[in-house]
Amino acid sequence: MVDTSVIERNGKVMLLAYDQGFEHGPVDFNDKSVNPEYIMKIAQNGDFTGVVLQEGLAARYYKKESDIPLIVKLNGKTSFQGEEPLSLQLCTVRKAADMGAVGVGYTIYVGSQYEEQMLVEFSRIEDEAHDRGMIVIAWMYPRGKKVAGRETDRDVVAYGARLGLELDADFVKVPYTGDPESFSWVVRAAGKTGVLAQGGKKTDWENLEEEIGGVMQAGAAGIAIGRNVWQDDNPNQVSMKLADLVYGNVKKENGI
Amino acid sequence: MVDTSVIERNGKVMLLAYDQGFEHGPVDFNDKSVNPEYIMKIAQNGDFTGVVLQEGLAARYYKKESDIPLIVKLNGKTSFQGEEPLSLQLCTVRKAADMGAVGVGYTIYVGSQYEEQMLVEFSRIEDEAHDRGMIVIAWMYPRGKKVAGRETDRDVVAYGARLGLELDADFVKVPYTGDPESFSWVVRAAGKTGVLAQGGKKTDWENLEEEIGGVMQAGAAGIAIGRNVWQDDNPNQVSMKLADLVYGNVKKENGI
Amino acid sequence: MVDTSVIERNGKVMLLAYDQGFEHGPVDFNDKSVNPEYIMKIAQNGDFTGVVLQEGLAARYYKKESDIPLIVKLNGKTSFQGEEPLSLQLCTVRKAADMGAVGVGYTIYVGSQYEEQMLVEFSRIEDEAHDRGMIVIAWMYPRGKKVAGRETDRDVVAYGARLGLELDADFVKVPYTGDPESFSWVVRAAGKTGVLAQGGKKTDWENLEEEIGGVMQAGAAGIAIGRNVWQDDNPNQVSMKLADLVYGNVKKENGI
Amino acid sequence: MVDTSVIERNGKVMLLAYDQGFEHGPVDFNDKSVNPEYIMKIAQNGDFTGVVLQEGLAARYYKKESDIPLIVKLNGKTSFQGEEPLSLQLCTVRKAADMGAVGVGYTIYVGSQYEEQMLVEFSRIEDEAHDRGMIVIAWMYPRGKKVAGRETDRDVVAYGARLGLELDADFVKVPYTGDPESFSWVVRAAGKTGVLAQGGKKTDWENLEEEIGGVMQAGAAGIAIGRNVWQDDNPNQVSMKLADLVYGNVKKENGI
Amino acid sequence: MVDTSVIERNGKVMLLAYDQGFEHGPVDFNDKSVNPEYIMKIAQNGDFTGVVLQEGLAARYYKKESDIPLIVKLNGKTSFQGEEPLSLQLCTVRKAADMGAVGVGYTIYVGSQYEEQMLVEFSRIEDEAHDRGMIVIAWMYPRGKKVAGRETDRDVVAYGARLGLELDADFVKVPYTGDPESFSWVVRAAGKTGVLAQGGKKTDWENLEEEIGGVMQAGAAGIAIGRNVWQDDNPNQVSMKLADLVYGNVKKENGI
Repeated sequence: MVDTSVIERNGKVMLLAYDQGFEHGPVDFNDKSVNPEYIMKIAQNGDFTGVVLQEGLAARYYKKESDIPLIVKLNGKTSFQGEEPLSLQLCTVRKAADMGAVGVGYTIYVGSQYEEQMLVEFSRIEDEAHDRGMIVIAWMYPRGKKVAGRETDRDVVAYGARLGLELDADFVKVPYTGDPESFSWVVRAAGKTGVLAQGGKKTDWENLEEEIGGVMQAGAAGIAIGRNVWQDDNPNQVSMKLADLVYGNVKKENGI
Repeated sequence: MVDTSVIERNGKVMLLAYDQGFEHGPVDFNDKSVNPEYIMKIAQNGDFTGVVLQEGLAARYYKKESDIPLIVKLNGKTSFQGEEPLSLQLCTVRKAADMGAVGVGYTIYVGSQYEEQMLVEFSRIEDEAHDRGMIVIAWMYPRGKKVAGRETDRDVVAYGARLGLELDADFVKVPYTGDPESFSWVVRAAGKTGVLAQGGKKTDWENLEEEIGGVMQAGAAGIAIGRNVWQDDNPNQVSMKLADLVYGNVKKENGI
Repeated sequence: MVDTSVIERNGKVMLLAYDQGFEHGPVDFNDKSVNPEYIMKIAQNGDFTGVVLQEGLAARYYKKESDIPLIVKLNGKTSFQGEEPLSLQLCTVRKAADMGAVGVGYTIYVGSQYEEQMLVEFSRIEDEAHDRGMIVIAWMYPRGKKVAGRETDRDVVAYGARLGLELDADFVKVPYTGDPESFSWVVRAAGKTGVLAQGGKKTDWENLEEEIGGVMQAGAAGIAIGRNVWQDDNPNQVSMKLADLVYGNVKKENGI
Repeated sequence: MVDTSVIERNGKVMLLAYDQGFEHGPVDFNDKSVNPEYIMKIAQNGDFTGVVLQEGLAARYYKKESDIPLIVKLNGKTSFQGEEPLSLQLCTVRKAADMGAVGVGYTIYVGSQYEEQMLVEFSRIEDEAHDRGMIVIAWMYPRGKKVAGRETDRDVVAYGARLGLELDADFVKVPYTGDPESFSWVVRAAGKTGVLAQGGKKTDWENLEEEIGGVMQAGAAGIAIGRNVWQDDNPNQVSMKLADLVYGNVKKENGI
Repeated sequence: MVDTSVIERNGKVMLLAYDQGFEHGPVDFNDKSVNPEYIMKIAQNGDFTGVVLQEGLAARYYKKESDIPLIVKLNGKTSFQGEEPLSLQLCTVRKAADMGAVGVGYTIYVGSQYEEQMLVEFSRIEDEAHDRGMIVIAWMYPRGKKVAGRETDRDVVAYGARLGLELDADFVKVPYTGDPESFSWVVRAAGKTGVLAQGGKKTDWENLEEEIGGVMQAGAAGIAIGRNVWQDDNPNQVSMKLADLVYGNVKKENGI
């Protein structure tokens, strides 16, 4: 098993996600956040243990000598796709490694009619990344008619988390189920695979605090969060408050 | 032909199956059985001749120095799929071998409209596994509109078993037809390929005893069983009683 | 061009076909014929110039030191498929050669909507087999809505035979058109590619004699026959009578 | 660019096409023309600059020491296909070269819903053939609902011819548009790619003379013709008259 | 990152596009423009920093010793395709390099139901081209039901441009949004990836001037234009006027 400590602090993970330009388009951005350099500063200055980028942003904005670990998201799809999404590999593991990534990410739309195709592609990526000693993170997102309306249900989310374990992912990124008790079942279903909660749409701090607090209380390994940070007027402040929730009392000292 | 004795005792096979987390999701589990370490103890202490795991569980929970032989299930699908299932390879034969497996498993949904695709993929896996001297077990499960309502019929089950022989599987795992006479035709159709009956859903001991008794009376090579063991309050006791039925009077001595 | 004499006697071919366990399932078998060892004895003792088996039967029942040449049928499908069949490669040419085969067989369902896919796969197999000096036999079976009701028509059968020639098959196996005159057009359409008639369902000797007599009268290269032999109570007797029709007055002496 | 002079005489091309056995079946043949040896004699004795065959005929009837250059048609489909045809590669470029071919042919059904698939396959074949110094001829045949009723329209035929140029074919074979003026636009659209008109169904000499005369008047590189030659009672006479139209006053002397 | 200066002048790009013969057919051409030699003269004499051709035109009309840089368009489709276009690779990167190209182009139909397939293929091409040090230009064209009527909307065009950045394209070619303000958002969304506006259908100079002026005012990297140049009676004059708009006051001196 690969060493995951490079993206951990106090045993916990807090990733800054910035793949929304691909998944949603620039509609998620304002004049500041449309600029990847703005995000890279947040990643550097905030308390994150890693940043998640697609290939092009990694190639043109990420510096290897940076002290923020890089996760390259390998697949992607646009928001023009329909109810049964299919997201395929757009960057090789080798390329990610060449750009300095310590890990790779891949989304599996659990419940989509194209689910099996993504399971197959993920399984090959997982092999290759682990052979290179890279961390493998599976975005396990429930989608499609089979799970419509149940995307954050305990059993559906736990199923996705379990698949991550059965597929030998090091971490799964899943939606929060809404309360610590149900989410702790998700964490148990994932076994030795760490569970990261996704941040989701921008919400106010009270909601976010309750959510992330519940996530960590349930025993999750951490979070991967984007819009709630870089859509905020004060992203560094948000990131510090999140760090308190995720890492507990540990303070940042010399890098992560 | 490969040597199958490594998973045989008194010429018979009794495998502990634990791939349900992938195929059905954690709904099959309770607080104990959700933990693969609990299952690994049952596999070690029970009278099994092997344990069946998906790649991730094998990688994170199976120990090569263990005295329970490992079968890695190479393909898988979720319960979100519809009436015509397609299950594809998610772990390479090489990876299974690297993790210490003595054999590999693969499900063919006989009757599914995607049947041919699985036949093709199985045939490649069979070649590679046999080239490595590994045991090949084909899960031959009738599914789909063409066999709906006939999934345990003599002729349907015997067809699946025969396909296993024609495809050069060492063992087929099939549903029980319900009585020893019809199941003996299944066994004969499989020729030199051994027939393993699946355990299926949890039932009480009387039913299970009659079923497994009939399976062995029909000349089967053994069973592959999961829920009836690890959903039971006393899995070791169940496993010992099953061993009596499968191996006959032979008692466990030094490992399997 | 490869040497085909290894499966010829007096320039004629008489193959024992036993791939029905795959194509139809064990329903074609009785207590005797379900056992491949029974068939292997018929193949050895009868006047056949070769036996046709799927990979698994060849691997587990065929002996290289046997004096009956082996043809491995490389593709197969179950009877669960619908009106537009697709049969794909399930055994490599290399594996067939390793098991001692002198030739390979492949079915193309002429008229099926998947026809082109089988033409493509056959063309690759033909290349590889001929590169190894192996005999290539194409089962050219009319199927699907486009030829429904015309499966044994002169023009449809002749088209299939001609395709075999254009694809560089050494032999085509086709259904009989019902009379020598129309079948002689099939033979001419096939040019230097030899034509083998299929045996089909069990019928009485009078019908069979008239059919095979017509086939040979039309100038065919021979027959490939299964059920009419091994479903008969006296398969060796049937095979001897067939040999008279196929080889003419030539008697078996030292093997084929 | 490859040297095309090997299939030219007086700078013009006249190919004998005999791939109809694959594309239409033996219905196009009579007792003479069904025999490829009959065709090979016409090819040798007539004034053709090349003969077009599928792999099987080339392998079994073409002699390398022959003085008629060989073009192997690499893809093919049967007449059982529907309105939107798909024709795929059935012979490798290497095999064609091994059999002595100086060029290869490939059909793209322009307008078919499977058009893109054939464009892709052609592009790979073109690369490989040109790397070997072989001549590449693209059959650009309008087909499918999108061009129904317009298969010989100036703009449709010119589009096909232009695609041949854009794809780097040495020659395109297209249907005649019916008059020299419109066909001269086809020729101009093809630029440095030579245009060959197809012969089509058997017609009387007056029609054929007017058609081929118009083709050459439009500046075409020549013709590829089959049925109008070998379905004729006197194929050598027809071929000589065609040669007059195609090559002008040049007479055959020492081979082509 | 590759050096893009070879197709830049004063930091700006002005490409002559001539792939319409493939995409639209010869209907876009008149007696002059149908001839690629005519276009090559315009490319040489005009103020362009590169010319865009499909493989066949590059192979037969482009001279390596030419002083106009070559971009080979790698994929293409005909106008016979329907509302949801799919355009696939028809020329290898290696072949483009062999012909002297400094860059490659590839169209992704953003919004098409086949979008993902093109994203995947582009990502492989991008890797290979960048490994060879070649410039990568992505044609990001909104198409299909999902974006119907919104093909030039700010958010749709900006999404396409952003995808180009996320995919690591050096330049994207996109439709103009109609006004400099909205187009400047497109430019910002593309970040370090340069934005080229497409020329589109022939229009009069006033419209064209306003459009290209707006494009450059928005901060674009330049334009890729065809019909408005070579359909004009005086293409060199148009190209000079365009050069003024694109490069500003810089005059051509010694080649580009």
